[in-house]
Amino acid sequence: MNLFKTAEKAHKGDHFDLDAALDAIKFNANGLVPAIAQQYDSGEVLMMAWMNPESIRETLATGRVCYWSRSRQQYWRKGESSGQIQQLKEMRIDCDGDTLLLLVDQTGPACHTGRKSCFYNIIRNDQMEIGSDPLIDPDTLYGGK
Amino acid sequence: MNLFKTAEKAHKGDHFDLDAALDAIKFNANGLVPAIAQQYDSGEVLMMAWMNPESIRETLATGRVCYWSRSRQQYWRKGESSGQIQQLKEMRIDCDGDTLLLLVDQTGPACHTGRKSCFYNIIRNDQMEIGSDPLIDPDTLYGGK
Repeated sequence: MNLFKTAEKAHKGDHFDLDAALDAIKFNANGLVPAIAQQYDSGEVLMMAWMNPESIRETLATGRVCYWSRSRQQYWRKGESSGQIQQLKEMRIDCDGDTLLLLVDQTGPACHTGRKSCFYNIIRNDQMEIGSDPLIDPDTLYGGK
Repeated sequence: MNLFKTAEKAHKGDHFDLDAALDAIKFNANGLVPAIAQQYDSGEVLMMAWMNPESIRETLATGRVCYWSRSRQQYWRKGESSGQIQQLKEMRIDCDGDTLLLLVDQTGPACHTGRKSCFYNIIRNDQMEIGSDPLIDPDTLYGGK
């Protein structure tokens, strides 16, 4: 039986082998799994990006979040160009093993626009409203043009 | 220019046409976009599921969250079999228009295992640890066998 199916019936505090759990994660047709990043203390959802098996293992080994960039088709060590890194506080896996939740400590903004969170487009009063301004000018973050 | 690209440079409180925003959402090859559900008051991330254009519009129209079930290939009005519905408090769209964040009020457990959140598998001390027990026996939720 799939490890996550077995875990469904397990009790709080029960343990499973980590390698077996990581091997049981269900990756999509592109070999990726979605990872939600949440600021560990405030609870703010910062962003969603994608991981492959190697980026998951690197993130657990280094404590610094590494995604897989679909647009650039390469490892994306969050903050490597902007300096706005994510320290991993805890990684969680969902009930069916196909989504990750990363509790992180985000240095500065998570969003490439310079905003704290990527989820600043709010549907309100039958319109889409901008919910926040950048903390830092993105031209400063990425060295400008 | 894509609406979300224009929104990147907009300021807090600026508005965009809702239909134009919904039309600019980037769906994947299967016509779906990931939607993260977060309990609006506690900040707990409950689950991640998928939406298509019609389920987004239905959710906004009714105030009750409707996903698209990939396994069943049909609309999934959260709680239709378990009674554990999600009332939408706010929908947000991320910077590049390819992920949704739903702030919801979840009745009872969000997870099919009867746990409040689907993210109960915690990586801790080089093991995977079960972080919570069901609030309700899932056999009760789904009528047993």
